[in-house]
Amino acid sequence: MSVDNIYNPHVSVDCVVFGFDGEKLKVLLIERTIANQNESYNDKKLPGSIILANEDLDEAASRVLTELTGLKNIYLRQFRSFGNPDRTKNPRDILWLENTLQLKIGRIVTVAYVALIKIDRKILVKSDNTQANWYELHEVPAMNMAFDHAGIINKGLDYIRHNLDIEPHLLFELLPRKFTITQLQTLYDTVHQIRSDVRNFRKKVAQWSYVVPLDEMEEGVPHRAARLYKYKK
Amino acid sequence: MSVDNIYNPHVSVDCVVFGFDGEKLKVLLIERTIANQNESYNDKKLPGSIILANEDLDEAASRVLTELTGLKNIYLRQFRSFGNPDRTKNPRDILWLENTLQLKIGRIVTVAYVALIKIDRKILVKSDNTQANWYELHEVPAMNMAFDHAGIINKGLDYIRHNLDIEPHLLFELLPRKFTITQLQTLYDTVHQIRSDVRNFRKKVAQWSYVVPLDEMEEGVPHRAARLYKYKK
Repeated sequence: MSVDNIYNPHVSVDCVVFGFDGEKLKVLLIERTIANQNESYNDKKLPGSIILANEDLDEAASRVLTELTGLKNIYLRQFRSFGNPDRTKNPRDILWLENTLQLKIGRIVTVAYVALIKIDRKILVKSDNTQANWYELHEVPAMNMAFDHAGIINKGLDYIRHNLDIEPHLLFELLPRKFTITQLQTLYDTVHQIRSDVRNFRKKVAQWSYVVPLDEMEEGVPHRAARLYKYKK
Repeated sequence: MSVDNIYNPHVSVDCVVFGFDGEKLKVLLIERTIANQNESYNDKKLPGSIILANEDLDEAASRVLTELTGLKNIYLRQFRSFGNPDRTKNPRDILWLENTLQLKIGRIVTVAYVALIKIDRKILVKSDNTQANWYELHEVPAMNMAFDHAGIINKGLDYIRHNLDIEPHLLFELLPRKFTITQLQTLYDTVHQIRSDVRNFRKKVAQWSYVVPLDEMEEGVPHRAARLYKYKK
């Protein structure tokens, strides 16, 4: 191997946190402001940062997510690393890296993590350092995004979909403990980005032995109360 | 973020290539010789190396595998990155890195790839640079291995097992086009590191709609000829 060709990149972690609020699938993003002499520019990025000297990758991902969004104790799963040499070539990103890290940075290989959580009253997104917010997933393609983060979000969603067949509990963690078939279908369709036929979806669910009908109906709803179900491991 | 804490690691790729020769599951390893002034030392490592300045990760993995083992056109799948700060702390590894790369190297984050192939006459392992060989998987725990490579091999096998339920074709690519249930069971048991009961295994396979019995029997075998099956996507 020729040593001349060896390049010393930086390593970062990025967190793709998907949240379901009962109706829509959202992703947690941070607003980024890039200030130059005369102008300033806003776009969005994933919560992420360069790893520190003595931390392992999983550790870095948890730390960065907490620092940038306030979220704690989220189960982050490493799903893929991204290292295209061109992923840090956008002048906006270069400028932002230099402003933020006070470092000349060439190449960054990022290790991406994914989480899927329920957005409820327990989930508070708040950080002193940054402005983190939930954005609807379908809005992402129209947003200005940092680096290759739009692509990383897509790969994160692919990963979730790919794993749902073997780990159905991933989906059910997003639902209330007792849920209706309509709630389940909304979530299923959102994650798979499809629109199932109601009748076919009920047939499909009838074959899932881990979805168990309860002797209970919804309460206090304006429409006809639907049967409640639970997830059995 | 404090810039003092930022560390500039190297990034490498490592390839975990599993091969099935019809009877045993093997892994492709490279013999490594570490020469010091007075002594020399042998152990095994995964085919891997530092990435070059202008290559993407997938590209680096393919290049490195070909350079070190001669294997070409192998479908390598990225499965996990390893970045424990202690993974490059063994003095043997430090010495080897300095000898090989002529570089002082602190920390290396490695992006690991996995492949599962059939070892047959088409698979030739040969490189001018190194001595690459197939080793039986069950021998690995007793071997002297470089870095955290024993752990990476285990995680690679976990990944394969985890994905077999959703991608059964991974398993069938290792078998001849027409195979017996005994061959399938040998492979299944090897990958899952279990010993199935013959009768229970036949019952399980009967439920796999993608395993189709043929109107053909084995030929030229010393024992009673068994029925042949094929895999239907």
